[in-house]
Amino acid sequence: MASTSILEDSPFIKCLKRETTTYTPVWIMRQAGRYMREYREIRSRVGFLELCKTPDLAAEVTVMAVEQLGVDAAIIFADILLPLEPLQLQLRFSKGDGPVIEKPIRTGKDVDALPPVEPLESLDFVFEAIRLSCRALGSRVPLIGFAGAPFTLASYAIEGGASKNYEQTKGLMYADADAWHKLMVKLSDITFAYLKAQIQAGASAVQLFDSWVGALSPLDYERFVLPHMIDLIGRLKGQAPVIYFGTMTGGMLDLMSASNADVIGVDWRVQLDKAWAQIGYERGIQGNLDPLVLLSNKAEIERQTRIILDKAAGRPGHIFNLGHGVLPETPPEHVRYLVQLVHQLTQR
Amino acid sequence: MASTSILEDSPFIKCLKRETTTYTPVWIMRQAGRYMREYREIRSRVGFLELCKTPDLAAEVTVMAVEQLGVDAAIIFADILLPLEPLQLQLRFSKGDGPVIEKPIRTGKDVDALPPVEPLESLDFVFEAIRLSCRALGSRVPLIGFAGAPFTLASYAIEGGASKNYEQTKGLMYADADAWHKLMVKLSDITFAYLKAQIQAGASAVQLFDSWVGALSPLDYERFVLPHMIDLIGRLKGQAPVIYFGTMTGGMLDLMSASNADVIGVDWRVQLDKAWAQIGYERGIQGNLDPLVLLSNKAEIERQTRIILDKAAGRPGHIFNLGHGVLPETPPEHVRYLVQLVHQLTQR
Repeated sequence: MASTSILEDSPFIKCLKRETTTYTPVWIMRQAGRYMREYREIRSRVGFLELCKTPDLAAEVTVMAVEQLGVDAAIIFADILLPLEPLQLQLRFSKGDGPVIEKPIRTGKDVDALPPVEPLESLDFVFEAIRLSCRALGSRVPLIGFAGAPFTLASYAIEGGASKNYEQTKGLMYADADAWHKLMVKLSDITFAYLKAQIQAGASAVQLFDSWVGALSPLDYERFVLPHMIDLIGRLKGQAPVIYFGTMTGGMLDLMSASNADVIGVDWRVQLDKAWAQIGYERGIQGNLDPLVLLSNKAEIERQTRIILDKAAGRPGHIFNLGHGVLPETPPEHVRYLVQLVHQLTQR
Repeated sequence: MASTSILEDSPFIKCLKRETTTYTPVWIMRQAGRYMREYREIRSRVGFLELCKTPDLAAEVTVMAVEQLGVDAAIIFADILLPLEPLQLQLRFSKGDGPVIEKPIRTGKDVDALPPVEPLESLDFVFEAIRLSCRALGSRVPLIGFAGAPFTLASYAIEGGASKNYEQTKGLMYADADAWHKLMVKLSDITFAYLKAQIQAGASAVQLFDSWVGALSPLDYERFVLPHMIDLIGRLKGQAPVIYFGTMTGGMLDLMSASNADVIGVDWRVQLDKAWAQIGYERGIQGNLDPLVLLSNKAEIERQTRIILDKAAGRPGHIFNLGHGVLPETPPEHVRYLVQLVHQLTQR
């Protein structure tokens, strides 16, 4: 932690505080992932959860992404659903189908039966991976910790995996609002404890992934999710800056902004200037290149990157990123090109 | 067609022209569908495509939905992908997986190889089903014709079916814009001819389903889709009012409005008042209850319906509907309740 003060002056951290930076900082969601040959090599030897749970390997891929891409922040290699494990919902990753929760929550009784939240010792491997990563990174770039936001965690815990229509999740909301809120309090508590421990281990900022919150109507978001986000983010204030990200949120950015997160992450389905106006300029914005553009060619990447930067208009508080995670089919060369391009085009 | 003048005075048609109506008209996307016992009975005997292609059966389910629900418009029973058949892309419906296009379009060469668009005799069964439906409906309610919008048709034709990330579709856009635009012109031409024939057969209005257009960034929408929508809707002007619907479009409603459609259909991910402000009050708006709410209970349905109606504020030009198609698990009783409720709450 000797490097803390130097990291405070990094473009990424300054940008989180809406301070002017010498260029626009950029990182890439899922920057350590399957699109990288070296990552696939490691994964050919160890399973996904095993990789998460082996601190030196998790730190290795975390740092490798920074070295290969030249991004302005590391993000710890982990999965948004790890905090479901201490809740004994039996998380596993099936090939192709993604995460499976063997014992999904369906009723108020299931919610009541959840074990107490703390201590989080069973997630120590994440905190150890953060410590190892921070040591390896030194003063080069800050590290982002992260967690799934309570709604997205709840949706997996209730549906038992990915979902198209969120029938069970919305079903519980509408049928038993008390049970829903009790579950959200539980998940907020665990998320707070989990992120606090990540910050203590060395994370300079945290991102809450509410990846599927855009499945909700703004009305339901306001009633069933926002109060918990205000509470959670309120508790994180003063600990570290918070980025709050979701997809398909074009119709609820004003409400997400009411969560008081420092930065709102948006997907490519919005126009960055209009989105920022809805969010309010007292907060930063993160985004928002369509990940698919990285599968095209350098001319197209430059074209679309320039337009996003034009819309950001050099306003302090824009962190460049994709609108969602980088896709496995992406040429790593294109990701590197994007990072250089953002730096080059925004020299101030 | 003796009843045309009476239909012109129906709440649905008046609403399409932003005229004041005695109550807010309502219809339900996919109102003739799997949630209905009678529909499932018919489908136990005939396949989905066969049902589309048997005019008296298609007309039967079209009219049945009106009789059972008391909605203010019928919509012809058909599929958005039928116009791909005259293009010889070999459409079929697999159980569970939805539509499959056996010979997807991948290159400019594939686009050039598409057969000429007209005549559309091979789709005569749709026009015949419309004639039969209109005769059965008489002056009760107008009938909506519909088609997939060119982007959504193109996405199926290129991906070969449903898609998560639209990699092939966006790939063609970015790699060969000329081929993309040529394909969109082709699909616009066929859609125009198809809808014109539906109007001649008796449809009083048409809806363009651009169900998956929200997968695009507003930037890509403006460059690759909007010019074709302006052209297509321009050609339909004077023939019949046009409703233009898509999901996940909260970030591009201003651009969809630039298509000059009479009414923009929105999903539940937007706040109806804010969406209408973005669309502009010179157009109508259709929507936008979350279909999942119909799986809950009457109190919740009433709660959410009241809020949507409050946001519409009795402004002429609001057509009540769901934000997407009614789900197979929906109790028909709840759909009927919703229709009555909208009528009751909006008596003026």
